[in-house]
Amino acid sequence: MATPTRSSKRQKTATGSADTSDTSAEYRLIYWPGIPGRGEHIRLAFEATGTPYTDVSNATDEGVNAVLAQISDKNVGDEANPPPLAPPILQHGDVLISQTPNILAYLGPKLGLVPDQSDDAAGLYHINALTLTALDGLSNEPHDTHHPIASAAYYEEQKEEALKKAADYRSVRLPKFLGYFERVLSGPASGGGDYLYGGKLSYADLVLFQTLDGVTFAFPKCVGKLKESGKYGKVFELYDRIKGQELKSYLESERRLKYSMGIYRHYPELDEE
Amino acid sequence: MATPTRSSKRQKTATGSADTSDTSAEYRLIYWPGIPGRGEHIRLAFEATGTPYTDVSNATDEGVNAVLAQISDKNVGDEANPPPLAPPILQHGDVLISQTPNILAYLGPKLGLVPDQSDDAAGLYHINALTLTALDGLSNEPHDTHHPIASAAYYEEQKEEALKKAADYRSVRLPKFLGYFERVLSGPASGGGDYLYGGKLSYADLVLFQTLDGVTFAFPKCVGKLKESGKYGKVFELYDRIKGQELKSYLESERRLKYSMGIYRHYPELDEE
Repeated sequence: MATPTRSSKRQKTATGSADTSDTSAEYRLIYWPGIPGRGEHIRLAFEATGTPYTDVSNATDEGVNAVLAQISDKNVGDEANPPPLAPPILQHGDVLISQTPNILAYLGPKLGLVPDQSDDAAGLYHINALTLTALDGLSNEPHDTHHPIASAAYYEEQKEEALKKAADYRSVRLPKFLGYFERVLSGPASGGGDYLYGGKLSYADLVLFQTLDGVTFAFPKCVGKLKESGKYGKVFELYDRIKGQELKSYLESERRLKYSMGIYRHYPELDEE
Repeated sequence: MATPTRSSKRQKTATGSADTSDTSAEYRLIYWPGIPGRGEHIRLAFEATGTPYTDVSNATDEGVNAVLAQISDKNVGDEANPPPLAPPILQHGDVLISQTPNILAYLGPKLGLVPDQSDDAAGLYHINALTLTALDGLSNEPHDTHHPIASAAYYEEQKEEALKKAADYRSVRLPKFLGYFERVLSGPASGGGDYLYGGKLSYADLVLFQTLDGVTFAFPKCVGKLKESGKYGKVFELYDRIKGQELKSYLESERRLKYSMGIYRHYPELDEE
């Protein structure tokens, strides 16, 4: 499998950022091998900006052990870094950062995926809010449709409850979140409606793309109907644009992993009848 | 009810912060009236630092209308601010910020509740990660124990599923998260184990206090047993210290609202037998 290789010199993509941290250090993504999962949000930030990174568990001999060492209940972290609860984890020089939206907040200024803070002091917080909202409604909630009772138990053990949870998700929650993002794209702060904020690609757009892609994999009939309704035209236009432009070559590469038994699962019985 | 009143001049509490935004603007918290809820995390940041703020729906004539105007599905935001999905919302001059951990990230440098970024560039990201983790496991998951299927339906309509979800929460999830924070406090990055990071109070400590306080209200018997086990001594010590020191006068004031039908609910049947 072709994956990005180690590079000691990062491609310069951030422009006008006031970021002062070490930019020569390698970016290492530590995440479960073989699935897109939450790690995919971090990959997309690198891929959309042409930034070299190492996908440790997929591209090095460390494999899954890199994840297991970090999340071991014996790991208390080091002098500078608390231990992480779960992957994804970003290693950047001596810094270890966990929690998906937090890694994106760390990378945003470095990769030019948020507005320059000297021009727009609040921009990065708006992008963080949009990201948290997309992850809540289009990643955490879809996960809970197949695991509504116990995240460590099998789907089959909670299938009855999953049928109810998924019905509520399809009819109430998913339309609510799509409607919200349509409203964001209709508002003046979007800067024209092509992107969520300020008329420019930010990592919030990449998160919205990826979560909607996952929800479409999980609930193809439901998403098809919602798309046909015409109520969420700007959201689906943004999705198509990012798919065909910013992420086109990555999505066609072997680095793009297939959905399987992660956050987004396609159980036909959980989709529309 | 005595609540903080408007003040055009903010008390100076941040020290050594590189923050350059307008510090003279009033802080206005827009949240549901009458309940602590997610808004409580924002109140605690102000209260622990002696920072004046206006609790709009509780302390002004605007009342709940301040919330309803923001979350209306007709609201598309303004030139600078996307619309929020839900409260809490922080208004600071012309800036409107939503999403609890995002508001805390915005306030952290301004209130001196994160390390100075010029000394410790990664500190605020570590504090954000700890905050996101506490909110996931000790706020969102406890909410889902009484609403496992549909957040807009009544508890009584999903009580059967709630009994199962709460059993998993008490036996698997809550011990997992308490164990994680005990490990963080045992690690060297905590700076001695009195606080989560760097030996100093940060907003992550306040979030851990508040979420553990809520979980204790919801599941008093379960938390009592976990405390007695002695496995989470540092976590409960941190809780007691913040309760008796940093937040003592606030918790004894009338501004501290009582738990009722919000995130944390005490249904005896969901607690230990």
